[in-house]
Amino acid sequence: MPVSGRASIPEATVARLPLYHRCLTDLQAEGRTTVSSEQLADLAGVNAAKVRKDLSHFGSYGTRGVGYDVDHLLVEIASELNLDHDWPCVIVGAGNLGSALASFAGFTNRGFTVVGILDVDPARIGRELGTLTVRHQDDLRDIVDAEHVAIGIIAVPPAAAQDAAGRLVEAGITSILNFAPTVLDVPDGVQVRDVDLAVELQILAFHEQRPARERPAG
Amino acid sequence: MPVSGRASIPEATVARLPLYHRCLTDLQAEGRTTVSSEQLADLAGVNAAKVRKDLSHFGSYGTRGVGYDVDHLLVEIASELNLDHDWPCVIVGAGNLGSALASFAGFTNRGFTVVGILDVDPARIGRELGTLTVRHQDDLRDIVDAEHVAIGIIAVPPAAAQDAAGRLVEAGITSILNFAPTVLDVPDGVQVRDVDLAVELQILAFHEQRPARERPAG
Repeated sequence: MPVSGRASIPEATVARLPLYHRCLTDLQAEGRTTVSSEQLADLAGVNAAKVRKDLSHFGSYGTRGVGYDVDHLLVEIASELNLDHDWPCVIVGAGNLGSALASFAGFTNRGFTVVGILDVDPARIGRELGTLTVRHQDDLRDIVDAEHVAIGIIAVPPAAAQDAAGRLVEAGITSILNFAPTVLDVPDGVQVRDVDLAVELQILAFHEQRPARERPAG
Repeated sequence: MPVSGRASIPEATVARLPLYHRCLTDLQAEGRTTVSSEQLADLAGVNAAKVRKDLSHFGSYGTRGVGYDVDHLLVEIASELNLDHDWPCVIVGAGNLGSALASFAGFTNRGFTVVGILDVDPARIGRELGTLTVRHQDDLRDIVDAEHVAIGIIAVPPAAAQDAAGRLVEAGITSILNFAPTVLDVPDGVQVRDVDLAVELQILAFHEQRPARERPAG
């Protein structure tokens, strides 16, 4: 398992921190001040021992019989995830998916602001998407520089994805979320996360039509 | 690690099978008849030993010096993934994301056909999305029965997600792809895969602003 970050937090823990952050945000909105590892585990859909171990990686142990302080833990996790400031993002590809992502409330209310969306199709350039206007892909560098963009989102067809990645890297982007079903070739120091939505459906399909007793518990 | 399916294929292998399937489909389209584990590994972005181990789970070992037969391996993986027939899917939620998913080419060309999209908002019901018309959520059961739907996709706001899941389960759906950032409570025998797009961005954010030497290799 790759190990990352200041305190050598395991990658699997990193992947769960956003879940804890989401659950704690909900608890805070409900006015809750403390939460036990069991409650947090339940909300996040993992087991309590894992929650305790995950949180111990950055020195959060809670108080016996009381649990964790919701506000404090939220600040700590947000800090670990670098969510204490807003992240400007840019989307390459203004088709159906790119356009939907540009106005996706789930990004904005969790610290990620889409500050630009680009395409090469003249029919799409100039189109208004909420507060954004679709711009030509050649404007990428200008937007990245002006808005201090760190994260690029690729929502183009597979055949155009590698070119989009190259342009993002050239413009100084070091983190890419790739929705195109293709493995991108990027230089060292650039991280890519792939979200292949059909893969998710295929994994579901694998488990369908199996006798119930053979299905995994989780 | 949970173990699943007929031949006890590990869950991590199951998650990689769709990647191999995608790469092999591309190779087949290019007219390639054989592929080595090294080539397939390269295309899928994993290492060759893992490819060999993964494929050995269902008895595919390739031929020394020749590699794997592309057509044969594709049929075998498609059969493992139950992709030898089409999967009708239904989407609950016809907002930006649901609407984009309804016409997402990445689903259709990989065996998943969206046969219905539903909402409760009168302003959305009746709207045309490609060949589909948005229908009222109350029509869910009719669509599931008529089209033999096995997979439901939840694309509603978080507060409505549990209700949507309950309706899908009631209508007989046993596999759910959930885009709402919330942990769903479903009965045994129903499988849920969560795709929280903001989580993907948060994981990228975690690794940003770390010195390059501390970043994970993969």
